[in-house]
Amino acid sequence: MTDPASLTIAEAARAIQRRELSPTELTRACLERIERLNPRLNAFVLVTAERAQADAARAEEELQAGIYRGPLHGIPVGLKDLYDTAGIETAAGSAVLRGRIPERDAAAAAMLREAGAVLLGKTNTHEFAWGTTTNNPHTGPTRNPWDPERIPGGSSGGSGAAIAARLALGTLGTDTGGSIRIPAALCGCVGLKPTFGRVSRAGIIPMSWQFDHAGPIARTVEDAALLLRAIAGYDPDDFATVPVPVPDYRAALVPDVRGLRIGVPRDQFFGLLDPEVLVAVEEALETFRSLGAVVEDVDSGFTREQVISAWRLVNVEGRLYHAPYLEQHPEAYSEELRNILLQPLPEPLDLATAYLDSYRIKEGVRRVLQSVDLLAAPTTMRPASRIGEDPVEVEGVQLSTGAAFASLTMPFNLAGVPAISIPCGFSSEGLPIGLQLAARPFDEPTLIRAAFSYECATDWHRREPPL
Amino acid sequence: MTDPASLTIAEAARAIQRRELSPTELTRACLERIERLNPRLNAFVLVTAERAQADAARAEEELQAGIYRGPLHGIPVGLKDLYDTAGIETAAGSAVLRGRIPERDAAAAAMLREAGAVLLGKTNTHEFAWGTTTNNPHTGPTRNPWDPERIPGGSSGGSGAAIAARLALGTLGTDTGGSIRIPAALCGCVGLKPTFGRVSRAGIIPMSWQFDHAGPIARTVEDAALLLRAIAGYDPDDFATVPVPVPDYRAALVPDVRGLRIGVPRDQFFGLLDPEVLVAVEEALETFRSLGAVVEDVDSGFTREQVISAWRLVNVEGRLYHAPYLEQHPEAYSEELRNILLQPLPEPLDLATAYLDSYRIKEGVRRVLQSVDLLAAPTTMRPASRIGEDPVEVEGVQLSTGAAFASLTMPFNLAGVPAISIPCGFSSEGLPIGLQLAARPFDEPTLIRAAFSYECATDWHRREPPL
Repeated sequence: MTDPASLTIAEAARAIQRRELSPTELTRACLERIERLNPRLNAFVLVTAERAQADAARAEEELQAGIYRGPLHGIPVGLKDLYDTAGIETAAGSAVLRGRIPERDAAAAAMLREAGAVLLGKTNTHEFAWGTTTNNPHTGPTRNPWDPERIPGGSSGGSGAAIAARLALGTLGTDTGGSIRIPAALCGCVGLKPTFGRVSRAGIIPMSWQFDHAGPIARTVEDAALLLRAIAGYDPDDFATVPVPVPDYRAALVPDVRGLRIGVPRDQFFGLLDPEVLVAVEEALETFRSLGAVVEDVDSGFTREQVISAWRLVNVEGRLYHAPYLEQHPEAYSEELRNILLQPLPEPLDLATAYLDSYRIKEGVRRVLQSVDLLAAPTTMRPASRIGEDPVEVEGVQLSTGAAFASLTMPFNLAGVPAISIPCGFSSEGLPIGLQLAARPFDEPTLIRAAFSYECATDWHRREPPL
Repeated sequence: MTDPASLTIAEAARAIQRRELSPTELTRACLERIERLNPRLNAFVLVTAERAQADAARAEEELQAGIYRGPLHGIPVGLKDLYDTAGIETAAGSAVLRGRIPERDAAAAAMLREAGAVLLGKTNTHEFAWGTTTNNPHTGPTRNPWDPERIPGGSSGGSGAAIAARLALGTLGTDTGGSIRIPAALCGCVGLKPTFGRVSRAGIIPMSWQFDHAGPIARTVEDAALLLRAIAGYDPDDFATVPVPVPDYRAALVPDVRGLRIGVPRDQFFGLLDPEVLVAVEEALETFRSLGAVVEDVDSGFTREQVISAWRLVNVEGRLYHAPYLEQHPEAYSEELRNILLQPLPEPLDLATAYLDSYRIKEGVRRVLQSVDLLAAPTTMRPASRIGEDPVEVEGVQLSTGAAFASLTMPFNLAGVPAISIPCGFSSEGLPIGLQLAARPFDEPTLIRAAFSYECATDWHRREPPL
């Protein structure tokens, strides 16, 4: 029999609904797999086995009582350690918050729970989701299931590795500059950064209020759609959210991209790429063409200078959040993060211009997305680098880890449009490669439809890492 | 026979649809009234009589051909001179832009035109919608139709005065700190600042990208609802807009507030008020109670310090917009505006904190609006002051014009929630007093329903100024 832990959410949900699989059995399978593999991978920093068993038992009792909460009923999930969990340590991968026990669940955590999900534990992240190193000095590095010597990508690396290694059926991550899509790409899974304001960040330890996004990582596009539906919606506790109706994203799971216009923004996204990434992405574009999509080159709608300018805001907002902690416990920060956060603030005019540039990027990308339905690009310039390797190389050019992995994802954080990373191939070393698609604000349905169509036509997402 | 110019939009629309009134006849009535009264009031800075006659003739031809565009078909309107109008000078009340002829209509102007409206001309505003004086040194002061020695309020003063004096049936204004609601209150009409992102600002000369809102001024709540419906919606050219469906606001025109929870934020809105304003607002709250609403005191959800901090962003963003003009044509600015725009920028940490405070206000107000459906407060601390009077007095306290008139409106710009000002009484000197209501993001329907209910129960909006 297949290990239940290696089912997709959709498969497990069907089995649970038909009473062929019980939430406790499924949860036990995940916990066993975590016990066996997590010491090697360090995807989870905290395993809440008792809570998981209690959640699963309750899910089972409900089923016996005829209560079915929907496709996440009894599904074991992991949460990036940035999500507050009531009664469960939430330390954001930091030493400063070690031992911090929130009283309330983050909004998205509460919504997953309400949808019937079972909490397996908290997944590893960079220190406060910051840092450009490949390691978290407080929690240790997460290892990429495809090659334990390599990084899983960050900052939701634990969430990506947990999915690739089949430790959980779904996880939530956060994405300020690519932190959901990068680990999805590097670990060969699906990562969806929704539209800014689609999912509440209330109760998530912030990096930048303007650019933080919460979203799912999962094995398939369908699973990501199921998770997104459970956590999307208006929340007065997050100023960014708006009462745009939440569609049933399952309706978008239609393998049909005929006539869909896909723009390829070569100017900003194809300049410097690992040749194997380029080949895989070009083949993916060919696949879209063969499926009937209209694929054409377009402008990106922004300049590199605008991105660099607007990205400064993340440092500024991070500094505001960290100021009180930094003052009281400077020694509890890694030297690297302390140095980032204590950089001098930009000059006032540069800071104001950064905000203006962020508006320009938003408008530029929205304008491009008037002439096409989607944008397609690589998720990262290259596959996973080795843990400790910094700088990393792309085509002979030495880059910081941040530049090599986040340059192609960050623009869609600044733009606030939804973007997904899906597996589109493997390097000759057997490392996953990610294809990134972006859509109009709140047009997650088109994003999901295109990603699902590609997934139906390929089988990259079916490969399992050699564990 | 009644002067057609003094019909409401809804009344005129019915007459036009029934072919009892023609768009050309109605437009002629407005143009005649403008000719007679505008020299005294200076509500319009530019009257586009030929364009109006052409628009009206086309509206009439369409009707004859059986084409009816809806309730704005053939309705004469004015646009604040901040709205770009294709082929028609748009100078934002400034000397710098004098003679500037845009190639394209602002999005909202185009939408009004599409809805069949007839453009009468451009209404007066403060210099670039800025300035705290009671006069525009380039275009002269607009006079309040209720007392020509008094200000109409700003910065959409021309739009407010034009409605009060029945020069136009509807106007559009912009509102960054209260500039739609203040003239509505001071001129005894209805001004609606929609949710941030509800109406596109594309093609409107900006004051602050974060806090500018476009919206209607009209005689009645129904008319404001008709105008709002025509201009609301997603626009890729304005990053703030989101694809929240645009309801038919006419469905909210139901005189029923039974069970509606109205919160009165006394801490921030009732501290310093002209006694006649206080009496009028308390009576309005009593009216709501008598209509079945549940009226209770609530916290405001923000502090005065946060408002002062976040408001700095308006100066900063204004400066960014004006920098190139200021450098080339400093002499074309009034000394007052030049001094405002050339103030030193805030220190970086203060500037960053201003953004953070703006998020806090948004979340604070949203949280309060979870426990009540609406907030109710005075629109301004006092009725209209005299032109040239600066500082102005409220209960013996000397205040700048800006402080006296915008302190109670500005918080809802920072919060981004929709707010309306409706007439709720007159001072012993015969000056209008405004009641302000604010609602949850995108809940304009509840705002309109409550304002309409109040309007049905009172007749303040029926009074006409002694012209």
